[in-house]
Amino acid sequence: MRALGIDYGGTHTKLLLLEGEREVARDTVDTVRLEGLADQVSSFLGDARPAAFGVTVAGTLDPVSGVVGRSANLPWLDGTAPARLLSQALGVPGVAVQDGEAAALAEARIGAGRGSDDVFVIALGTGIAGAHVSGGAVRRGAHGAAGEIGHLRVTAADHACSCGGRGCLETVIGGSQLGARWSERGGAGGTARDVVAAARAGDEAARAVLDDAARGLGRALLALSALVDPALVVVGGGVARAPEWTVEPALAHARAEATFHTLPDVAPAALGVWAGAHGAALAARDAAAARPADASSAART
Amino acid sequence: MRALGIDYGGTHTKLLLLEGEREVARDTVDTVRLEGLADQVSSFLGDARPAAFGVTVAGTLDPVSGVVGRSANLPWLDGTAPARLLSQALGVPGVAVQDGEAAALAEARIGAGRGSDDVFVIALGTGIAGAHVSGGAVRRGAHGAAGEIGHLRVTAADHACSCGGRGCLETVIGGSQLGARWSERGGAGGTARDVVAAARAGDEAARAVLDDAARGLGRALLALSALVDPALVVVGGGVARAPEWTVEPALAHARAEATFHTLPDVAPAALGVWAGAHGAALAARDAAAARPADASSAART
Repeated sequence: MRALGIDYGGTHTKLLLLEGEREVARDTVDTVRLEGLADQVSSFLGDARPAAFGVTVAGTLDPVSGVVGRSANLPWLDGTAPARLLSQALGVPGVAVQDGEAAALAEARIGAGRGSDDVFVIALGTGIAGAHVSGGAVRRGAHGAAGEIGHLRVTAADHACSCGGRGCLETVIGGSQLGARWSERGGAGGTARDVVAAARAGDEAARAVLDDAARGLGRALLALSALVDPALVVVGGGVARAPEWTVEPALAHARAEATFHTLPDVAPAALGVWAGAHGAALAARDAAAARPADASSAART
Repeated sequence: MRALGIDYGGTHTKLLLLEGEREVARDTVDTVRLEGLADQVSSFLGDARPAAFGVTVAGTLDPVSGVVGRSANLPWLDGTAPARLLSQALGVPGVAVQDGEAAALAEARIGAGRGSDDVFVIALGTGIAGAHVSGGAVRRGAHGAAGEIGHLRVTAADHACSCGGRGCLETVIGGSQLGARWSERGGAGGTARDVVAAARAGDEAARAVLDDAARGLGRALLALSALVDPALVVVGGGVARAPEWTVEPALAHARAEATFHTLPDVAPAALGVWAGAHGAALAARDAAAARPADASSAART
């Protein structure tokens, strides 16, 4: 079937039209409000008509009603049901999916996790996101909080975290935290990229910051092995782009502290910035498969 | 169907015969080697003939082959397939199940977790065991290690753990560790019961030991909420028998440190020392349901 994935991001929106797994078209447009998005999608599609679409939500989402709780970057979505509104405008059935969940679904099913049915996806970005994809679906947990590996407490250095807690993995490896940790050790601060560049150039403080980060990620991987024990961990996100300073030393720390644990295989994410759009298209297809046959398909039989 | 549960423990063996959920008979006998166990079972059954049995293994078990890896308490089981051997002796099909898994399965399905489909069971005993029961089955993980909540690192006090690691939950709340922690603080040492009795009597060192234990369990519950997010946690085991000194303060610590987390409901285990035998009977029933119809049942249709 033909499925449209819409990755409705904070600054850019990615549009991806798939026929089965074959890519028909893709485009990246500036993010606008919902009415404008329907126009962008119509002109992207031209004469092509997908059977269903999926749209990502950068925020909290009630997976049953499809209503957005809160989107920090797209505040006009708060309280709306974006898939329903777009569906009315486009005349095509659609489904909303949380953006991190969409990316994880895609990486697990058609990206680096293809072929494994038990994948934990970690996004090492400004914040840290995680999702366990098992049986082809994201395991959300009883209260929608499962997979929050970024908020495991991994260090006695009690830095305040964005979640309100202290000592979380995000405080030692979050993209927006690495520079702060470097400043505290007398470094120049800046982005994750700046810290990695300084470490490469031999800066001892930057190296110590990245070692703390890797130790924290190693501890989180051990906790993940002990509680969830996935077959494969897929790691993506900007901070993972320098694996020799992040993921590889984290695995070395985890191996050094492992006892009964069998560490998962670890692979880099494969879909890059298009993971969300792919995941939205997959969610569209899953929803279409779960939907009862409609009038037109009933007429065909 | 009539199912027999055999909980083959280190010193005592529990035999439980069920017709559906109704108890037909139960008995507790001294643990003997496997040949003797077959005789004990035969005389327990008399004329009653179960459709299937389950037998617990106190040790590591390959769930596919049914072969025991290592049993510390019943060393004659190492390398054997106890369900196959018993099955030959009794003329009844049977299945082996790891003892902690059996108890967790029973607590989740017919004990304190009845009615919930997403239960994490924690046994606070000499060691700490855990298992996530979802969809009616224990989630074993890719390498059979899932659920090992006792070996989450929850404290910077780096006591050595039975697993070879340091700072695990078991080092602050394991039944065999509480006395050691109390001794280190100048207490008299002894069993978990001794530490609790001293705390009740006002001993400050014992209270500090139990507060460390509760803080560790609280941290583990937060990690469990963040990664697995179960609906319900069922807590059993000897150490949980004094909930006002263990589980209740642990929940208070967890609530004080929770941020985005929605803590699970927490309930005490309901089946007591018979949980393993009930779980073995459940495993027997599950295996019978999964087994292709045999000749006799095919003849009946």
